Amino acid sequence: MTSTSHTKPNSDTENDTVKSSPSNSGGMRLVVPLQGVVQGRGGLILGSLIPCALFYFLQFYLKRHRPKPSACNPPSPSTSSPNLAELHRSSSRLNLTTRSSVGRVFLSSRASVVAAPNDSPYYIGMDRFRADPYNELDNPDGVIDLGIAENRLSLDLMEKWISSNLNVSTLGGVGDGLNINGILTYQPFDGLTELKVALAGFMSQVMGEKVSFDPSRMVLMSGATPAIEVLCFCLADHGNALLVPTPYYPGFDRDIRWRTGIDLIPVHCRSSDAFMVDIAALDQAFSQARKRGQKVRGILISNPSNPVGNILSREMLHSVLDFAREKNIHVISDEIFAGSNYGGEEFVSVAEILDEEDADRDRVHIIYGLSKDLSVPGFRLGVLYSFNENVLEASKKLTRFCSASAPTQSLLVAMLSDTGFIKYYMRTNRERLRKVFDLFVAGLEQLGIKCMNSSAGLYCWVNMSKFICPYNEKGELELWEKLLNVAKINMTPGSACHCIEPGWFRCCFSTLAEKDIPLVMERIRKVVERS
Amino acid sequence: MTSTSHTKPNSDTENDTVKSSPSNSGGMRLVVPLQGVVQGRGGLILGSLIPCALFYFLQFYLKRHRPKPSACNPPSPSTSSPNLAELHRSSSRLNLTTRSSVGRVFLSSRASVVAAPNDSPYYIGMDRFRADPYNELDNPDGVIDLGIAENRLSLDLMEKWISSNLNVSTLGGVGDGLNINGILTYQPFDGLTELKVALAGFMSQVMGEKVSFDPSRMVLMSGATPAIEVLCFCLADHGNALLVPTPYYPGFDRDIRWRTGIDLIPVHCRSSDAFMVDIAALDQAFSQARKRGQKVRGILISNPSNPVGNILSREMLHSVLDFAREKNIHVISDEIFAGSNYGGEEFVSVAEILDEEDADRDRVHIIYGLSKDLSVPGFRLGVLYSFNENVLEASKKLTRFCSASAPTQSLLVAMLSDTGFIKYYMRTNRERLRKVFDLFVAGLEQLGIKCMNSSAGLYCWVNMSKFICPYNEKGELELWEKLLNVAKINMTPGSACHCIEPGWFRCCFSTLAEKDIPLVMERIRKVVERS
Repeated sequence: MTSTSHTKPNSDTENDTVKSSPSNSGGMRLVVPLQGVVQGRGGLILGSLIPCALFYFLQFYLKRHRPKPSACNPPSPSTSSPNLAELHRSSSRLNLTTRSSVGRVFLSSRASVVAAPNDSPYYIGMDRFRADPYNELDNPDGVIDLGIAENRLSLDLMEKWISSNLNVSTLGGVGDGLNINGILTYQPFDGLTELKVALAGFMSQVMGEKVSFDPSRMVLMSGATPAIEVLCFCLADHGNALLVPTPYYPGFDRDIRWRTGIDLIPVHCRSSDAFMVDIAALDQAFSQARKRGQKVRGILISNPSNPVGNILSREMLHSVLDFAREKNIHVISDEIFAGSNYGGEEFVSVAEILDEEDADRDRVHIIYGLSKDLSVPGFRLGVLYSFNENVLEASKKLTRFCSASAPTQSLLVAMLSDTGFIKYYMRTNRERLRKVFDLFVAGLEQLGIKCMNSSAGLYCWVNMSKFICPYNEKGELELWEKLLNVAKINMTPGSACHCIEPGWFRCCFSTLAEKDIPLVMERIRKVVERS
Repeated sequence: MTSTSHTKPNSDTENDTVKSSPSNSGGMRLVVPLQGVVQGRGGLILGSLIPCALFYFLQFYLKRHRPKPSACNPPSPSTSSPNLAELHRSSSRLNLTTRSSVGRVFLSSRASVVAAPNDSPYYIGMDRFRADPYNELDNPDGVIDLGIAENRLSLDLMEKWISSNLNVSTLGGVGDGLNINGILTYQPFDGLTELKVALAGFMSQVMGEKVSFDPSRMVLMSGATPAIEVLCFCLADHGNALLVPTPYYPGFDRDIRWRTGIDLIPVHCRSSDAFMVDIAALDQAFSQARKRGQKVRGILISNPSNPVGNILSREMLHSVLDFAREKNIHVISDEIFAGSNYGGEEFVSVAEILDEEDADRDRVHIIYGLSKDLSVPGFRLGVLYSFNENVLEASKKLTRFCSASAPTQSLLVAMLSDTGFIKYYMRTNRERLRKVFDLFVAGLEQLGIKCMNSSAGLYCWVNMSKFICPYNEKGELELWEKLLNVAKINMTPGSACHCIEPGWFRCCFSTLAEKDIPLVMERIRKVVERS
């Protein structure tokens, strides 16, 4: 009882040893009379073989009874490098935390994992930015953040709309006009029907009016993060796995692993294929998992891809659906950047594919939200759109843990219903994204740095492999550290996205004003010229 | 792979059998040569004893490897009665759902539990009300809801304040005036500092200015429900338990059991003690759990008590803290009705006790929220207040799954900062609660029905035991069904609150207008006169 929270897993192991003692004493009761019986020919051999056999079973039993890995696995080793000073400092801070809690009340082992200092460069970089954010006037030597996928290019449009339209009826005017009770009292946890209807229209608009969405298949939550977590709770049990083509959004490791206990199996894609989903690699990963005895319950794709920024083709979506059908697993399509496409490529939702073929739809689920395409992450509004009735039933009930605020929903109903504004916003926002993307990529090109072709998302996927030495994860993280500490630029290294090829970085450009781009390039130049 | 989601646990069992085959074949390899060796004295005995021993181990191994019970245990049997038609109908609906999913893609076993039809009268009654809500003009024969703890008595005050004060600066005016960006962009997931400061002041005010709260110990979330779930994730692992004095709030079974996998151990309190926490019963439940090998990690109390409506005395709080210290477990104090006290009794927060004694505070955590005391459940704003640094660290990170909306937080900052309004609101709201409570209790008394003495909360705890026959849970549920179907009054039976004495009901009176009370009494009279 005086053990620390961190040593709890060990105390559980002790407990398991104690629990197994019945089998142990049971074994002894059997061995002792047997030794009395074994007097004849072969007695010597039997006298040693029987205890051996029993010991073998005992060992096997104990081995299988080791405590399961915690529900919240720490991010895989590939996201951290023990050689780096930054990560060493993190580790030593972890030890301090652990030591200081000796003799205190227990915490859960999952809390210890969550409370441990960030060990992914993605979160370390974010923390560094928050501690020392760049500001032209007040802190010109601060960190410039290219880590968070936040769109600051069109905030003025939002601000203007809210300033012009905010009043009691936009805030509480759901249904019959001025009815403020509708935002004060308990509302359905899974979202206001009015907002579902408005969102269905908005999603169709975002996706080029080629597909329609059914409001009754929508579950609204306080962000896409709870939407994906709730969905995963419904699709897989503790210890089950999802296949995730890499590079993938670094937040998935927390979103899915921390509380559901589901394992993510990275399935590696290659630069030679423009990091496109590789069905053969998926198939291989599926077979390997099955051989290990692990149940794969689904495949999680992001379309447009995060962090690469390209769009999955219609053919690729068909292949993914075929694969899922063949293996009888789910498809989760994270389409949160669907409306942030600024290139010439046509975005195709998996919902559009399902409209075309009369396939079994029960296995398909879409994640969406307003944080990216509408630039309102502070509103906390995410969507789970599922074709599976049981998933809808369960996830609606689970929204008790993550329901969206009613006044915010009301405001969004008013905003999304202003179709003139929404059209203007979407067009202008895409133009602005395109412009800053072009400037950013051109700036990098002047430094001899190339990006993967991309046409959507708030980021580009930058190939800095020629500046890393050695050509491995260690080299990549050393460059990341130099960029962060010397150039004061926070980028996300590919290893944080489980990318198998070293030297790639995700750079979010939509947090920058146009005028900041030359400064960013100048800072990067200082580091890469020395590499 | 063609099995239904519901039969998944069975398929897991099959899989475990397959997994265990290495030990089985390992056993065979040992048994066969041994049989060859056993030729001398005792060969016959050995020839049967060795396989027996190995078989014993195999059985033991298989027994221990049975799939663990699901993370989300269905509510305990005491909350449902298979004898009732209502519950039978529910069950048959479950079977239908299960059958229809044959041959489809798997869902998790936890999703099946969550998606199953409600089996607690608490939720069944709520659904019935939603399907047929009473309305004086449109639906005078509809169900009148006394099930949900929602305060509708002071909505007019809120509505007036919002109508008068809503503008762009109250919505985004955090920090330096008109700054709408502060509600659009990503904000700290654990809440705006400005709101934490305002809430600390509000909580002190609510608790009679006898205790101060430190904003840095606050974690804000989208409701008290996620706050309690996040806290439980931090305090206990899957399979651990919390002691919960009964009767307790029926929502805890979903809030805590569904996703954390933590077990709730009801510890029964008696009407003869005014259902006050019984330390001896806690001690006994703790010992019994330990004997079963189950780890008890904490005790969960609600103060003011939900559903009884009385307030824990200072001495009782000391005893609970002493008990927790002796057992080295946590104390979770759910104080969400702290400001809804309308009687003469003084409310004492566990935080006040900790101020008095210099005790180890690491084990104490408070749940609060604005849904009850401020009548804004639609705003989704809950608070976890913890004295434990590691819990704060972990739970802040877990708010990624349940963060509150920034515009709503901004609006609350403005509202809570209007101390004149808040004082007026709190005083007026208490007066109104007192008035309706008195009328409600007097109405019941005229029918010969007594309530437990109470002075806080939005409900009273009604003794209808003399109207039930037989005097057991079945009788109680029969009365509940008559009230719901004949009188069209939705009350929550004590068994849904795990109350050990049959015949008690929770009646929430704060959803009623004064003029509705005679109608409610008239409807109840019809049923009890016939009983």
